[in-house]
Amino acid sequence: MPSISVKGQHMPESPIRKLVPFAEKAYKAKKTVYHLNIGQPDIKSPVLAMDAVANHSLEILAYTRSEGSQEYREKIATYYQNNNIPVEANEIIVTTGGSEALLFAMGSIADAGDEIIIPEPFYANYNGFATASDVNIVPVISKIEDNFALPPISEFEKLITPKTKAILICNPGNPTGYLYSKEEIEKLAAIVKKHDLFLIADEVYREFTYDGLKHFSILETEGLEEHAIIIDSVSKRYSMCGARIGCLVSKNKQVIKTALKFAQARLSPPTFAQIASEAALSTPQSYFDEVIEEYQERRNTLVENLQAIPGLKVGVPKGAFYCIAELPVKNSDAFAQWLLEEFDVNGETIMVAPAGGFYSSPGVGLNQIRIAYVLNKESLIKAVEILRIALQEYKD
Amino acid sequence: MPSISVKGQHMPESPIRKLVPFAEKAYKAKKTVYHLNIGQPDIKSPVLAMDAVANHSLEILAYTRSEGSQEYREKIATYYQNNNIPVEANEIIVTTGGSEALLFAMGSIADAGDEIIIPEPFYANYNGFATASDVNIVPVISKIEDNFALPPISEFEKLITPKTKAILICNPGNPTGYLYSKEEIEKLAAIVKKHDLFLIADEVYREFTYDGLKHFSILETEGLEEHAIIIDSVSKRYSMCGARIGCLVSKNKQVIKTALKFAQARLSPPTFAQIASEAALSTPQSYFDEVIEEYQERRNTLVENLQAIPGLKVGVPKGAFYCIAELPVKNSDAFAQWLLEEFDVNGETIMVAPAGGFYSSPGVGLNQIRIAYVLNKESLIKAVEILRIALQEYKD
Repeated sequence: MPSISVKGQHMPESPIRKLVPFAEKAYKAKKTVYHLNIGQPDIKSPVLAMDAVANHSLEILAYTRSEGSQEYREKIATYYQNNNIPVEANEIIVTTGGSEALLFAMGSIADAGDEIIIPEPFYANYNGFATASDVNIVPVISKIEDNFALPPISEFEKLITPKTKAILICNPGNPTGYLYSKEEIEKLAAIVKKHDLFLIADEVYREFTYDGLKHFSILETEGLEEHAIIIDSVSKRYSMCGARIGCLVSKNKQVIKTALKFAQARLSPPTFAQIASEAALSTPQSYFDEVIEEYQERRNTLVENLQAIPGLKVGVPKGAFYCIAELPVKNSDAFAQWLLEEFDVNGETIMVAPAGGFYSSPGVGLNQIRIAYVLNKESLIKAVEILRIALQEYKD
Repeated sequence: MPSISVKGQHMPESPIRKLVPFAEKAYKAKKTVYHLNIGQPDIKSPVLAMDAVANHSLEILAYTRSEGSQEYREKIATYYQNNNIPVEANEIIVTTGGSEALLFAMGSIADAGDEIIIPEPFYANYNGFATASDVNIVPVISKIEDNFALPPISEFEKLITPKTKAILICNPGNPTGYLYSKEEIEKLAAIVKKHDLFLIADEVYREFTYDGLKHFSILETEGLEEHAIIIDSVSKRYSMCGARIGCLVSKNKQVIKTALKFAQARLSPPTFAQIASEAALSTPQSYFDEVIEEYQERRNTLVENLQAIPGLKVGVPKGAFYCIAELPVKNSDAFAQWLLEEFDVNGETIMVAPAGGFYSSPGVGLNQIRIAYVLNKESLIKAVEILRIALQEYKD
């Protein structure tokens, strides 16, 4: 039998995937499962985006340009300019989700064996993209006690080698909800300039910031033009995860030229989804105001109720719609499985994402979980109550 | 300034891309350009697929399963079974175009520096996917004199090394239009079994076969279950290139398990496009009968008219909608540019794809072009007449 690649063997499984059989067992047992484990928002997509697709008049579902349609890229540029990010259409490549933007970024700047430094915990799929790209992730631990703020810049500096090509951040962070301050971004800018590295920022949660805080983009930093690569996506912004439309943004002409070659190889991003995404850019501010208010209230409800649980620590999110909670258990994988398989409160239980998969350092975060607050407040209150009772009953 | 990766520098540009500025010059000069260069069919997409999307009632454009929705995969399995290809839903992973299926296949079976043998000329983007995957393509030349039939199997055998992981074919072929016979597929099956390799077949043009010939899939070959990986796509079948929906098919459980990890990392294929693709599976046979008749007539018209040009050789296609023509010129790159930049017949000219980009061996195919017959007969006749006059006038 021909053999699978070493890379393929090393490709990580989704940290949630291994729980799926236990979730299915829970459904079979007629349990109600509150899903705190996924990043699929329950927020409706903008009606104008969904209508734009319903009203399409295409007779041939043709390729678009590899870099995305000109009209759409020009509108995205205007969106960025309105967000104080000075970019032009030709500095944008439309991708199939933020996922593809990240693959293009890694491929454009890193060869097999090169290294990218990432503060952990980080979005678990970065591991997959790095493995697929033959790139090594070098983690810097950020701590729940600091709400997952940027680790001291000296910690980054210690890890820089001739193979280091970039520092990658997610801002606001999945899974931490941490929002980097202007000062933190400027510290990162200084170190990438000093060592001639790229700074890649996954800014897909840009709009989702709370407590009156404002997102500060890496492209708002002066002098970072040749170093900055933004990864973006419509998935969370417009609750259009199934569109699979994102983009890669850079003012570095070599990066755009190179990423375009990756884009050409796969021909074009999906056409219907570009129609939806272009229309979504006309979404009125009131949509975001409502969504952000909703998320902020959910965040408040969630954190308040979590903090009331004895022995539980929680990183208070300032953005996105996730938080990391540290539980008084040894192994959150086993706990998450137990919740689905053996536990319920009046036929109800919860599904959580064990946080081990969000760390690259082995053995770190094993007592943590990621909670996504993509459920309404009432469900969140019930879900946290179930967690509270579960932690009382659970023995590990 | 931070540096681009070596991989990024080596990523090939699309063989047509470099002609785009000259095409734009031709438009500016008000020339009519007949596009023989692209694989975007002028055939209408099935109305039922386009209507399925227009009639969508989604409120949230959510992720689907990473491997594609269960319903869609079950319907694809039925489609294969109807085509004498015995596969089940769990042997299918829905991908973002055939492009992604090929990336998943390469990543699942090959590590950096591994080799895949491909008969050339081959679909130019295989070069891009191989470079992105750090895989080396080892070409075997097939010849226009043989209509691009399978080269002697001894030629493959010579090239097999410990690093060889697979043989990749495109059947029917882009850019050759060659349709491998059952006997040729069986020869390939024997060699991959003997050397424990994978046989990857890009079968996206399966339906488009002429002269009453029938496509023979690698999965119709007995005993090839652990070796065969099919790459497929709705792009050409239903003239839905902009959907970006394809699939990877294998009965090898390790391949599916591994490819699924790549699929999970990028979350899901596009949702609207899956709706269109699922509906497209109900396209009646009459649609294909008409389309195939149209392509066959175009092929006949094209080949007949090309063969009448002195000094021109053409590989007669038995499938797909491309052919390779060898011209009495030294360099088809320069000729293609000249056609756009300096030549016209009463304000009309043609754009062709120089074939050098479809070869991996340096210096081969430089006097060849690929012609796509995705224009109506009348336009094809005009276009070939322009080519005839151009070849009389051109001096290289």
